[in-house]
Amino acid sequence: MPAARAATRKPGSLPAGVKAGDSLSIARAISLVEDRADAGADLLQSLAAGTGRAHRIGVTGPPGAGKSTLVNAMARLLLDAGGSVGILAVDPTSPFTGGALLGDRVRMQGAAGDPRVFIRSMASRGDLGGLAAAAQDAADILDAAGKDWIVIETVGVGQTEVEVAGAADTVVLILHPEAGDGVQAMKAGLMEVADIFVVNKADREGAERLVRDVLDTLELRRPSDDGWKPPVLSTVASTGKGVAELLEAVGKHGDHARAAGSFERRRKARARQRIRELVEEALRARVLGSGPELLDGLVDAVTEGRSTPRAAAMELLRRVTVGKGKGGDHGDR
Amino acid sequence: MPAARAATRKPGSLPAGVKAGDSLSIARAISLVEDRADAGADLLQSLAAGTGRAHRIGVTGPPGAGKSTLVNAMARLLLDAGGSVGILAVDPTSPFTGGALLGDRVRMQGAAGDPRVFIRSMASRGDLGGLAAAAQDAADILDAAGKDWIVIETVGVGQTEVEVAGAADTVVLILHPEAGDGVQAMKAGLMEVADIFVVNKADREGAERLVRDVLDTLELRRPSDDGWKPPVLSTVASTGKGVAELLEAVGKHGDHARAAGSFERRRKARARQRIRELVEEALRARVLGSGPELLDGLVDAVTEGRSTPRAAAMELLRRVTVGKGKGGDHGDR
Repeated sequence: MPAARAATRKPGSLPAGVKAGDSLSIARAISLVEDRADAGADLLQSLAAGTGRAHRIGVTGPPGAGKSTLVNAMARLLLDAGGSVGILAVDPTSPFTGGALLGDRVRMQGAAGDPRVFIRSMASRGDLGGLAAAAQDAADILDAAGKDWIVIETVGVGQTEVEVAGAADTVVLILHPEAGDGVQAMKAGLMEVADIFVVNKADREGAERLVRDVLDTLELRRPSDDGWKPPVLSTVASTGKGVAELLEAVGKHGDHARAAGSFERRRKARARQRIRELVEEALRARVLGSGPELLDGLVDAVTEGRSTPRAAAMELLRRVTVGKGKGGDHGDR
Repeated sequence: MPAARAATRKPGSLPAGVKAGDSLSIARAISLVEDRADAGADLLQSLAAGTGRAHRIGVTGPPGAGKSTLVNAMARLLLDAGGSVGILAVDPTSPFTGGALLGDRVRMQGAAGDPRVFIRSMASRGDLGGLAAAAQDAADILDAAGKDWIVIETVGVGQTEVEVAGAADTVVLILHPEAGDGVQAMKAGLMEVADIFVVNKADREGAERLVRDVLDTLELRRPSDDGWKPPVLSTVASTGKGVAELLEAVGKHGDHARAAGSFERRRKARARQRIRELVEEALRARVLGSGPELLDGLVDAVTEGRSTPRAAAMELLRRVTVGKGKGGDHGDR
């Protein structure tokens, strides 16, 4: 892994580079956390004090809704207003990662040569749970790099995508005027997590009906616990129509949530969830790594009627935790 | 809990009653394991040596396929042939449990007064993971009670139902001639786990086409690792047509799997899975039960930039396992 080697060769330079907002350092840092290795964990620890400042925007919706175009338009406006932007395009359906998939975006980045924008795609590598965690780590890096706005964009409305895009300060659901979209989004639980609804391609037939459908559905939704009433906006991403209003709504949501205390509550809930997931991941690794002989022996005891699954589980747990308790806890990261 | 009190009052009598095949004892024992309390774990341990003899048949399929009628017809034939039968009707969609839901079945049981059949419904109580585990525990009890055949029947083809019915020696998928059934079943992964396919209501229009559709789909399926070729049978449960052939196929599958070694392999895999689930459940309970102050403090450290989710997770894990290691492991069951 070239990024890992570079980090080893010049210790201390990577965190400094990230904090300075250097794009190459950010790219290397994200590669490190994608690998989920010790070096990535150490890096995140050294960057922790610099996180928490950025506003994270989750953007999701069915394929074909024009999310990428809309996110690019949002980024341009934010840059024009003097802000800096990090974009994570997360694709759980693809095993490929890196910038290669994002032809037009890389062009946009390269052409502008603007160091205030950083764009990166992230893919599953076959591990969906890991992707959600890595996306959050990557957002932390962009946060520590001083980006004012971090957009976490997903390709579709599957469970992983809801999880990834839902772990943001403001969640934007993009729909487009085609039959079934509203229903599809509701099924995935997206209607529940979205703070702002956008009907993109609003110049197409059926757009007005879709806006009404979404408004009708929102009437049935349980009110937000912080009193936020999700707006339903219309945009035409290709011409930029409505994009400024969308950004205004994002800002309004942030102000409202900060005032109501839900901004911090949501961040705390997110941290809690991440801690729990990492604890379970570490525990699972311990159990699975406890040696096949131990588990095989316990399985035989159960199938031969000498033990029960419960007694076997407790025996396994006892051996794993006692063994680790003696030897220390250094192998878990 | 009346069953628990009865067990406490007369220690030792419940395992003996179960082993003797007493229906009231079996019912009390299943209530105990449904509660997932220590008494249930102790009971299962004392019954462990008597399990592993019964042939477990998982039966599932979309609602309206006639599963209950077919299972009743199967039970009658098995009883007529001199066998004893336990039936678990598992409904993840219902929060209610007990015999009350099974009007016609209880009547069948009461009318016959045959001690060789035991019928019980089990419902979610709002905890789907717990239901799958409780259904396996209940099957162990029926097994220890000397039932020759245990039928585990589910109401539909959701993920939990596939999990519940799939944890059997022979898995039967019941379809009926209505559009979309095959597709629905395939989506839930049922085509992959089924050993025997049944088109029930075979006297209805579309039955022959459905048989052909299933056969076509099976052509595309990866062959079983033990060389078993799943048959596609036609039944009319209401008249009993084809039920004897279905039972014959179940027996053939058992013989084939025993000879090929897959019968034991599957049981070992099932035991392994149950052990893992119980370990993870116990670990999760430990983490969540480690006191809200500890987790709250770690969450604050993360949101305030003093720590990372990973470092917080490792700290939580260290405190939980070290604390438990000193104090012993008795609180986990």
